[in-house]
Amino acid sequence: MKKVAVSLGDPNGIGLEIALKAHPILEKWGIEPLYIGTKEVVEEGAKLLGGEVPSTFQVVESGFTGNLKITPGCATGEGGEWSYRAFLKGVELAKKGEVAGVVTLPINKEAWEKGGIKFKGHTDLLRHLFGGRGIMVMGVPELLVALYTEHLPLREAVERVKREPLERFLITLAEATGFEKVGVLGLNPHAGENGVLGREEIGEIVPAIEGANRKLGREVYFGVLVPDTAFVNPPRRVVALYHDQGLAPLKALYFDRVINITYGLPIKRVSVGHGTGYDIAYRGVAKIDSYLNCFRWLFGEELGTESESEGQFPFEPKPQSRLDSHSKK
Amino acid sequence: MKKVAVSLGDPNGIGLEIALKAHPILEKWGIEPLYIGTKEVVEEGAKLLGGEVPSTFQVVESGFTGNLKITPGCATGEGGEWSYRAFLKGVELAKKGEVAGVVTLPINKEAWEKGGIKFKGHTDLLRHLFGGRGIMVMGVPELLVALYTEHLPLREAVERVKREPLERFLITLAEATGFEKVGVLGLNPHAGENGVLGREEIGEIVPAIEGANRKLGREVYFGVLVPDTAFVNPPRRVVALYHDQGLAPLKALYFDRVINITYGLPIKRVSVGHGTGYDIAYRGVAKIDSYLNCFRWLFGEELGTESESEGQFPFEPKPQSRLDSHSKK
Repeated sequence: MKKVAVSLGDPNGIGLEIALKAHPILEKWGIEPLYIGTKEVVEEGAKLLGGEVPSTFQVVESGFTGNLKITPGCATGEGGEWSYRAFLKGVELAKKGEVAGVVTLPINKEAWEKGGIKFKGHTDLLRHLFGGRGIMVMGVPELLVALYTEHLPLREAVERVKREPLERFLITLAEATGFEKVGVLGLNPHAGENGVLGREEIGEIVPAIEGANRKLGREVYFGVLVPDTAFVNPPRRVVALYHDQGLAPLKALYFDRVINITYGLPIKRVSVGHGTGYDIAYRGVAKIDSYLNCFRWLFGEELGTESESEGQFPFEPKPQSRLDSHSKK
Repeated sequence: MKKVAVSLGDPNGIGLEIALKAHPILEKWGIEPLYIGTKEVVEEGAKLLGGEVPSTFQVVESGFTGNLKITPGCATGEGGEWSYRAFLKGVELAKKGEVAGVVTLPINKEAWEKGGIKFKGHTDLLRHLFGGRGIMVMGVPELLVALYTEHLPLREAVERVKREPLERFLITLAEATGFEKVGVLGLNPHAGENGVLGREEIGEIVPAIEGANRKLGREVYFGVLVPDTAFVNPPRRVVALYHDQGLAPLKALYFDRVINITYGLPIKRVSVGHGTGYDIAYRGVAKIDSYLNCFRWLFGEELGTESESEGQFPFEPKPQSRLDSHSKK
């Protein structure tokens, strides 16, 4: 089944534009996207972009009943609720098995706050919904980086590098993802250079790797990798010990194409790696590579090699559109 | 003056091969390299690579008087001393003003140890020679990254992020380099997200930036930059707070081309960013882009756009050479 729920994200950002632009490519790939939002807003958005919603663009009502006018680039409570409802509905369809997974377009945290939604974002909400500890993995299909610690001050992230919890994380990650041959980064410069530049590699990380492999009964993990050269010819799967260690080289290499996967859930969920792009909303310039990679991850990398350059609106943008009033700014 | 001292580095590594390969390009650029080593070893090396030393390849005797046979890929005490003498002589020429600067090819730390040389490497020796605190800057001419801390355990590097020493560093860096418009990275994920993910940005880094700019009397520094996205469209000059924060994205983007500059010395000194390449020594496959970038940094980026693909031996490698016996391995 190639039916996928696409939650359209914040209606004042670039989500809808991306969905419209990439729609012809997804159709070519044989994917049946269910775009979750509201028909009214989707139609308004297409008009702002200078066209009409194409007939094959299936909108599934999210259950949002409020009153929303699109205000490009503005965080509004209505926009927050609209994107929240769309995401919840997508998760529901996935839980019921009606779709292969949920692809999420970006929400805005401020808009969620304004809309009275108490979660910090998609991942936070997912953890709440599934009582679980979803593992955050970012990257492109050919290079996925799992984060051992995420949004923690660096000082605290360093403190968390201890054998036992790291070993547990590695075991959970292997079970949740099925990853094989995963490189684990060191913590210190030159991966500690045999203890001269830090002892966490010797005392914590290598024992955690060995312990995890032993308990898993196979050599899933190897390392430690030297952090500053690991991304020159990286293995396909990497564990980073802290946020920037993994994401800085990853984004340097692949920015527009990065996706964000939550592993360890009973549903498949993948998100674009970028934000709402308020500064370019409804200007027709949003990039679709990250979004396309979400589907490549769901259905296998060999889905197609179409890229940014092939994304196009399924309609001719009209010259009198909002698009132009924006570009004159 | 485009006369440059080139210390040939460890004779059992890739230094001599790089110098020979790039020599025709340097000649084309109007540079007069003085290759520091010993004639005997240079001739032996060229033979191993299947040719003869070209007549325009000026070797300056380093003062090494030992007995050395090249042993490709092996760290030997003689090799260590050979590279040490070459470097010292290069620095001497630069101090006397006989060359515009010193370009160094890689030495091997183990070989220096075996040769009884008590310094950990070029930078360590330079600091000793000049009683100074040379600042390590790595990168390519279009993206140079200065390291606030270098070879320290990450835990200690985090502790060093304090307003006062950081401010002093920023002032010294600006004075030593003449850099303008330098971005300073944050320490924590999302640069602390207004204090939610760490307070060093608010309490230490921003005040250090403001203090340095005030004392310098101009807006040299800006930031803080969000570490994981700073290298997507990076400014040309960046300060990284710790080793891997700067070098991991830098090497991911530019590995073969990175150079290592020591600022803050009375001489100009620049090194290739890579090591001795023992695993590929005398096999004819070493890359020269980093080496060429050393000269671009010395004389301006517009020196020429020649790249790796244009590097060639100034002679036809002979089929009976050592090169072939190696490639059969």
